[in-house]
Amino acid sequence: MGCNLAIAGVTGAVGQEFLKILDEREFPFSSLKVLASSRSAGKKINFRKKQYSVEELTKDSFAGVDIALFSAGGARSKDFAPAAVKAGAVVVDNSSAFRMDPEVPLVIPEINPEKIKQHKGIIANPNCSTIIGIVPVWPLHRANTVKRMVISTYQAASGAGYPAMLELENQTREILDGKEPTCKAFPYQIAFNVFNHNSALGPNGYNFEERKMVNETRKIFDCADIAITCTCIRVPVFRAHCESINLEFADPITAEQVRDLLSTAPGVALIDDRENNRFPMPVDASGKDEIFVGRIRQDESITDNRGINIWVAGDQLRKGAALNAVQIAEKLL
Amino acid sequence: MGCNLAIAGVTGAVGQEFLKILDEREFPFSSLKVLASSRSAGKKINFRKKQYSVEELTKDSFAGVDIALFSAGGARSKDFAPAAVKAGAVVVDNSSAFRMDPEVPLVIPEINPEKIKQHKGIIANPNCSTIIGIVPVWPLHRANTVKRMVISTYQAASGAGYPAMLELENQTREILDGKEPTCKAFPYQIAFNVFNHNSALGPNGYNFEERKMVNETRKIFDCADIAITCTCIRVPVFRAHCESINLEFADPITAEQVRDLLSTAPGVALIDDRENNRFPMPVDASGKDEIFVGRIRQDESITDNRGINIWVAGDQLRKGAALNAVQIAEKLL
Repeated sequence: MGCNLAIAGVTGAVGQEFLKILDEREFPFSSLKVLASSRSAGKKINFRKKQYSVEELTKDSFAGVDIALFSAGGARSKDFAPAAVKAGAVVVDNSSAFRMDPEVPLVIPEINPEKIKQHKGIIANPNCSTIIGIVPVWPLHRANTVKRMVISTYQAASGAGYPAMLELENQTREILDGKEPTCKAFPYQIAFNVFNHNSALGPNGYNFEERKMVNETRKIFDCADIAITCTCIRVPVFRAHCESINLEFADPITAEQVRDLLSTAPGVALIDDRENNRFPMPVDASGKDEIFVGRIRQDESITDNRGINIWVAGDQLRKGAALNAVQIAEKLL
Repeated sequence: MGCNLAIAGVTGAVGQEFLKILDEREFPFSSLKVLASSRSAGKKINFRKKQYSVEELTKDSFAGVDIALFSAGGARSKDFAPAAVKAGAVVVDNSSAFRMDPEVPLVIPEINPEKIKQHKGIIANPNCSTIIGIVPVWPLHRANTVKRMVISTYQAASGAGYPAMLELENQTREILDGKEPTCKAFPYQIAFNVFNHNSALGPNGYNFEERKMVNETRKIFDCADIAITCTCIRVPVFRAHCESINLEFADPITAEQVRDLLSTAPGVALIDDRENNRFPMPVDASGKDEIFVGRIRQDESITDNRGINIWVAGDQLRKGAALNAVQIAEKLL
């Protein structure tokens, strides 16, 4: 026996990953509703030897639903999550719609699982770059307060959904065939190129992804004064983000201490083999649950041995999105 | 009339770029020797309507040569540059062999051209990431001392030569055809992947590229106490490097002041269009002489408005290597 489950946005890249992860983790449910926009209504989805028919996501979709996993974009979350809550469901929402709402817990189970029970119907899943960056920083922060983080990201196409992943593949073929690359999902060429994250820029010049990382980290760490600056960049990779993270601590810390703290940290796996120049790569992280960490180095540009550089890689669709949400749902049960 | 010129390593990616740039800039020479390893001896090279035959690089190659442009790797520079100097040539060396030798000027013409005349036969061309990163930082540093830099790079395959550029193309085809990628020039998959720079790691865990950026910047800026930390990363791009650079200044500075300073800086071009989310990309910089700068933002994680983030892109083979060396040779004339 399990709960009555619904997935909103089931045909998207994260929606499909929800199904994979629910299956792998043998998530217990007694009924499953698969919801998407009217375009996808009627599509068949095979899951655990049963066939499900995609239903159109409406305000009436949630009668009898206990847990609704949402990944259908911010606008749809705003429109339909309140209806799901009204119908009695708890919503785990992967969009940015409710993350900074003070009434809504923003949860990474490895960091602040205790917030889950404070929910009033909606629990927000953080942004992918936030999750991937801060899962390994949290155990360090608890041991020795992080005063400041400087982050540069190397973000995969998957963060912009299936069409963006396809566009990376198609543009790559076009360029190798000597053709002009076709840009639709992204504003600029993604194949063999690198560009500023394709989210809206604020008046201070930071893109929305960068502002999410700052604000969400402060909320999740429950630490309003942690200083953070980010530069979020797209690279031609399919589904795993990397981040170069420079950390300034309150007190002295060594690379060895960081390695020790991370070697037992939940959700974290070390790949830090200096001898073979072997460190986390997107190909390591793709399809995996862990956040991989390496290149752990003392940063001598910070006084008193208070500086550390680390390098992380994590699957954008799994821990960066679907896995984290399913982990929250597991805690709800 | 012009000088007697030699190019050592003419068949490599930088060697070929030397020829293009000498032609474009109508570099005046009365004779040209094209040198490479014995493997390439006898190859024909067409240049300015004349055909040249590649000769094997030996200690006897430099009789009568006035200027020798070297890009044949550090070991060959160590072996043959002293012979060229003994024969009366001035060597502009693109390898890392002599860069940190206190007797050898390390020159970026936009920054420290006055060092050229102190040469004792050899002038070193800095590392590509160093040049691309610091050409735009120098005018800022002169206006308001840079105390600390945190740099993360997004480096193209070209830095590892022609075979690496070909490997990016071939691996990409292999992966799109569903095959395993073949790794030869790089230790790990470069297509659709990202990894730590493929240079030797020091005991502190920093790769050689990162140590070059720190040490060379201090020498070129003539500023031993500038604090710098780097994370150098390869991305699947052909020939232009990008860098995310976080700057801490001695005194307050605004994004507008940085934009003003860079708008007239030699060798720098701004692409900083927030309205259209249009900033420097490798495809902008490829084949171009300028270092492109954008994403100029106040970094509020540094107190007293002393923090700035910038993002740069520059052609690794041109300003990162061949162009800078030819500019030095032009000053020598």
